[in-house]
Amino acid sequence: MIVVMEKEASREQVEHMVRRIETLGLKAHVIVGTERTVIAAIGEKRSQMKESLASGAGVAEVVPILAPYKVASREVKKEPTQIVAGSLTVGAGVIGVIAGPCSVETEEQILSTARAVKAAGATALRGGAFKPRTSPYSFQGLKEEGLKLLAMAREETGLAIVTEVVATADVPLVAKYADVLQIGARNMQNYRLLEAVGKTDRAVLLKRGPSATMEELLLAAEYILNEGNPNVMLCERGIRTFEAHTRFTLPLASVPYLHHKTHLPVVVDPSHGTGHTYLVPDMAAASIAAGADGIILEVHPHPEQALSDGYQSLTCPQFEETMDKCRRVAEALGKKL
Amino acid sequence: MIVVMEKEASREQVEHMVRRIETLGLKAHVIVGTERTVIAAIGEKRSQMKESLASGAGVAEVVPILAPYKVASREVKKEPTQIVAGSLTVGAGVIGVIAGPCSVETEEQILSTARAVKAAGATALRGGAFKPRTSPYSFQGLKEEGLKLLAMAREETGLAIVTEVVATADVPLVAKYADVLQIGARNMQNYRLLEAVGKTDRAVLLKRGPSATMEELLLAAEYILNEGNPNVMLCERGIRTFEAHTRFTLPLASVPYLHHKTHLPVVVDPSHGTGHTYLVPDMAAASIAAGADGIILEVHPHPEQALSDGYQSLTCPQFEETMDKCRRVAEALGKKL
Amino acid sequence: MIVVMEKEASREQVEHMVRRIETLGLKAHVIVGTERTVIAAIGEKRSQMKESLASGAGVAEVVPILAPYKVASREVKKEPTQIVAGSLTVGAGVIGVIAGPCSVETEEQILSTARAVKAAGATALRGGAFKPRTSPYSFQGLKEEGLKLLAMAREETGLAIVTEVVATADVPLVAKYADVLQIGARNMQNYRLLEAVGKTDRAVLLKRGPSATMEELLLAAEYILNEGNPNVMLCERGIRTFEAHTRFTLPLASVPYLHHKTHLPVVVDPSHGTGHTYLVPDMAAASIAAGADGIILEVHPHPEQALSDGYQSLTCPQFEETMDKCRRVAEALGKKL
Amino acid sequence: MIVVMEKEASREQVEHMVRRIETLGLKAHVIVGTERTVIAAIGEKRSQMKESLASGAGVAEVVPILAPYKVASREVKKEPTQIVAGSLTVGAGVIGVIAGPCSVETEEQILSTARAVKAAGATALRGGAFKPRTSPYSFQGLKEEGLKLLAMAREETGLAIVTEVVATADVPLVAKYADVLQIGARNMQNYRLLEAVGKTDRAVLLKRGPSATMEELLLAAEYILNEGNPNVMLCERGIRTFEAHTRFTLPLASVPYLHHKTHLPVVVDPSHGTGHTYLVPDMAAASIAAGADGIILEVHPHPEQALSDGYQSLTCPQFEETMDKCRRVAEALGKKL
Repeated sequence: MIVVMEKEASREQVEHMVRRIETLGLKAHVIVGTERTVIAAIGEKRSQMKESLASGAGVAEVVPILAPYKVASREVKKEPTQIVAGSLTVGAGVIGVIAGPCSVETEEQILSTARAVKAAGATALRGGAFKPRTSPYSFQGLKEEGLKLLAMAREETGLAIVTEVVATADVPLVAKYADVLQIGARNMQNYRLLEAVGKTDRAVLLKRGPSATMEELLLAAEYILNEGNPNVMLCERGIRTFEAHTRFTLPLASVPYLHHKTHLPVVVDPSHGTGHTYLVPDMAAASIAAGADGIILEVHPHPEQALSDGYQSLTCPQFEETMDKCRRVAEALGKKL
Repeated sequence: MIVVMEKEASREQVEHMVRRIETLGLKAHVIVGTERTVIAAIGEKRSQMKESLASGAGVAEVVPILAPYKVASREVKKEPTQIVAGSLTVGAGVIGVIAGPCSVETEEQILSTARAVKAAGATALRGGAFKPRTSPYSFQGLKEEGLKLLAMAREETGLAIVTEVVATADVPLVAKYADVLQIGARNMQNYRLLEAVGKTDRAVLLKRGPSATMEELLLAAEYILNEGNPNVMLCERGIRTFEAHTRFTLPLASVPYLHHKTHLPVVVDPSHGTGHTYLVPDMAAASIAAGADGIILEVHPHPEQALSDGYQSLTCPQFEETMDKCRRVAEALGKKL
Repeated sequence: MIVVMEKEASREQVEHMVRRIETLGLKAHVIVGTERTVIAAIGEKRSQMKESLASGAGVAEVVPILAPYKVASREVKKEPTQIVAGSLTVGAGVIGVIAGPCSVETEEQILSTARAVKAAGATALRGGAFKPRTSPYSFQGLKEEGLKLLAMAREETGLAIVTEVVATADVPLVAKYADVLQIGARNMQNYRLLEAVGKTDRAVLLKRGPSATMEELLLAAEYILNEGNPNVMLCERGIRTFEAHTRFTLPLASVPYLHHKTHLPVVVDPSHGTGHTYLVPDMAAASIAAGADGIILEVHPHPEQALSDGYQSLTCPQFEETMDKCRRVAEALGKKL
Repeated sequence: MIVVMEKEASREQVEHMVRRIETLGLKAHVIVGTERTVIAAIGEKRSQMKESLASGAGVAEVVPILAPYKVASREVKKEPTQIVAGSLTVGAGVIGVIAGPCSVETEEQILSTARAVKAAGATALRGGAFKPRTSPYSFQGLKEEGLKLLAMAREETGLAIVTEVVATADVPLVAKYADVLQIGARNMQNYRLLEAVGKTDRAVLLKRGPSATMEELLLAAEYILNEGNPNVMLCERGIRTFEAHTRFTLPLASVPYLHHKTHLPVVVDPSHGTGHTYLVPDMAAASIAAGADGIILEVHPHPEQALSDGYQSLTCPQFEETMDKCRRVAEALGKKL
């Protein structure tokens, strides 16, 4: 950690900070610059010492040197993590494709979608049974009934099930049916929920919150990893910016960035990331080119009749075309999809 | 709702949308413009019809006319809501001042802070017992022990207690000790938690998520109101933007905007909203001038020793000065503080 | 245009707006909804009428139906525009690759870079002679001397020259040497400069400002087109968001979005869009996959010695690898690069 | 400057960076931490050395310690700068009020507005003669004719004139008529224009660009100061964020922040900062409470008929009420308005 003193900081203030750094169990190293004094604190741990030092009198800024996450860090584990959950494999050169409707609505809807996406090459089925909706007046999902329909679709197609869990109390129920537990963007910092899925033996798809930094995303993963569950896929699904022509802004540079910082696989969601069906195929292909280990796509047999997210869902033929495009890009880059 | 067709939309596509609008129980009204056709859908309800229509073939855009929230809306209740929770009154011309440390740490710390903020004019005591922390390695709060210390401080000073609840399972416990249940920014869209506090008889302080729109904030309030709890204070605590010189960007225009749209009182948090002690007094005064019904401020007897948020906490003398400034502004504007 | 009245708008206010709409030469069409009245204004022109109506008493909102740009619009010209400027062809299935240093520094530097990027497949050379720098104390470019060095590099390699112009007064000089005039992000709304390049016969590369909306970008292009210059390439180079791990956030969905809205070709700049060399190759490939008609990349023989932007420049061997990656993606998608 | 090496950086890479730092004329000081090595570079100058070092092999990050602006810095000049331009005084405890229409439209319009705002207490008149408009099809201003009308209004009322200059070539003309030259948000980084106004003897009102950082704003001011013109007022007018309920987000914390960093006075523009008339009075009062040295407000006798910005203009009676509110807040805080 580097403690930068203000230009007019007194010698007493510098000495005070040196003592505080030593009290925290670190070694202090004072560097007197031409205009300012800085103190290097050696032996930094990855916790809240920064906060503590930043409030010192005469301190202009505290610059941490170490990233605050550990288990997720590429510094700790060099080789990329590959996650296998039933039919779904993600990471280390294998690209997973998770496809299906926003919400499970009917047996006919989920089964026909499962068959179609399987035929087109999807390796897992998505579908929401518990839906976190912005408005209390919107459709909230079929709950356990939806989970049963998903299990039925797995039975028939062999596709692994990826479905969201929105409450700590529901974790055992959802884990009974799902192969992968999805933590939605709104719950990325619902720490009790992260701890609960961290205690299961299910893989977790952790979606980035729309205003989460990379560090916050990795620390959220750390909550799960820290409970003993190593199978966390990170999911970039777009951030909130001033842009209004897309539902969210999809910042694909987070894919190579995360590969640089963590060994965990990275999945991209171009459906939520753009919010418009017509933008999804190109952005799916771009995700693969950026190095994504997986994509998750909303597909609905009749988007117009969807109870949620119809405007960003692909029809089954559109999904086929998208898969074809993605497959060609993956092959060109020597990846398996 | 206004359904805007694409320029090249066919007559069939327009007729199809008319039928779909009628199927949804609305009246369709076609307006043929010079360049485009639009269809007004009359009888709009405040739910997810927009999503459903937006995926129609030939549809360029769907523009909703009604806000999706109801109970929170000023259209439904004209007069401002005043909330009374123990010593704390907020709204309708009365400004509440909630002050205290980020976290409850020790008996000595919370009691001395309570006494000091009471003496300076605070009308409620804040303090976290359950702390949602970005890193799993940071201090997570004293839990029930912290709640007991808060109750002890109320016993002595008479100040109402405002404290955060982070998990549905903890709601009964926290409600036993607290006068006001705080929903933190990270949990603004944790809908199960909103429903749980909506079922209690405690007032709720609902913090805006750092990337939440006004509509999402009001819909989150609607989740609580919809369970029968009318005592919701909205709290502006800053948003995520490109600005890095403050911890968050504090957009005070949300105060008059919310007063225009809702009857619920609006509290501002200049401590989290700026993230730097030296910016807090001016922004507290500005909050009052913008029309805030309350402010919530972090105060710590020894910020340097705080286990969290020391860099944005006022000392007790700084809090006194801030109160003095705020009181003068409030009086100049004919408000009671 | 749709004028949405407030819920409590009086009949007089509605009638007043009808008269105002008619005064503007439009037809007014009143639609009385269950809760609100809206007025459709038919015959909308693409100008500032919205502003004028929005200030009417009782008006809640005015929703324009037509995009405000004309000449740039895909509604006006269906087939994509292909721009040829010397060795550079961009658009309609042909991908251009513009590569070179941030600034022209020395003859040796620009010539060796030109040779290397040409050998690796670049179709144009970039290099700044007039540099807009955030700080007045930074290197401001070699000016005309730099232009001469660029011309020398063209002489030798045959590569078209893309270089920035920062002032109206410099347009004739820069146009004398350059094949493509670049308008930098900081000048995207410097309208006098846009008009000046619109009066030349040089192609223009118009960079998106870091907080410009798509509509603002297309209206800036419209300033150039409107002066009679049809050869405008739009350039996505990243936007300002809360993300700090990249220099800007590169929102690739703007590529398919722009292709939907305009016939003008779209170039992507992954160097500025990420700000870190190690992120550039993947994001260049992703740009191609997203459908970009061109990419512009910073390449420097010795990034460590660059007078600007070294941290985001590729070395010549890194550029070769990037080209290889991009070429494979382009071929997989049936494009020529 | 602190050069942070990557965890796996080799001894050779560290030694290489030490030599590079020394080549730049600085002293290098190596600190070996538990996990990483950092090198302090002592003798830092405020220029582009950071860029140069950041591209070194094995370098993870370079953290500058000094702010890159000099003349604008409070470290260089402690006491606040007061600017006097005709009837307008801004700074050091005196609050200026600049009011008037967005655009000068007619003699009657500008004269009646000038009289009304003068009567209500404004100390300067604003009005655009050269208008930078997003669309080339919008009203572009009356140009010199508008300047003459402004001079006529000054003649009659004695109010100083604040008006925008959009092109370097127009600077002498506008300076002939204006007391204060306004640089609009779109031109904040039009460096040739900044240099041109820096060569005049007119005060300058420099508006913050909608995505400019504080550092970029201060460096833009530095371009003007550096040419010898010391009379620069900074103007906060709102930033681009994800918020759509206001035209821009007005981050008032920039007022106390700037007072901490610079001696230059800070003016706030609540009209552009909110974009809605009904939000302006509260935000004007909040600006004063936050410590603004001045406010600039759009006032129009008949906003409905305004050729631009009617939706955010106050009527004359609304301006009077706003002035009354601001005056009360200013007096409560011991300021002169």
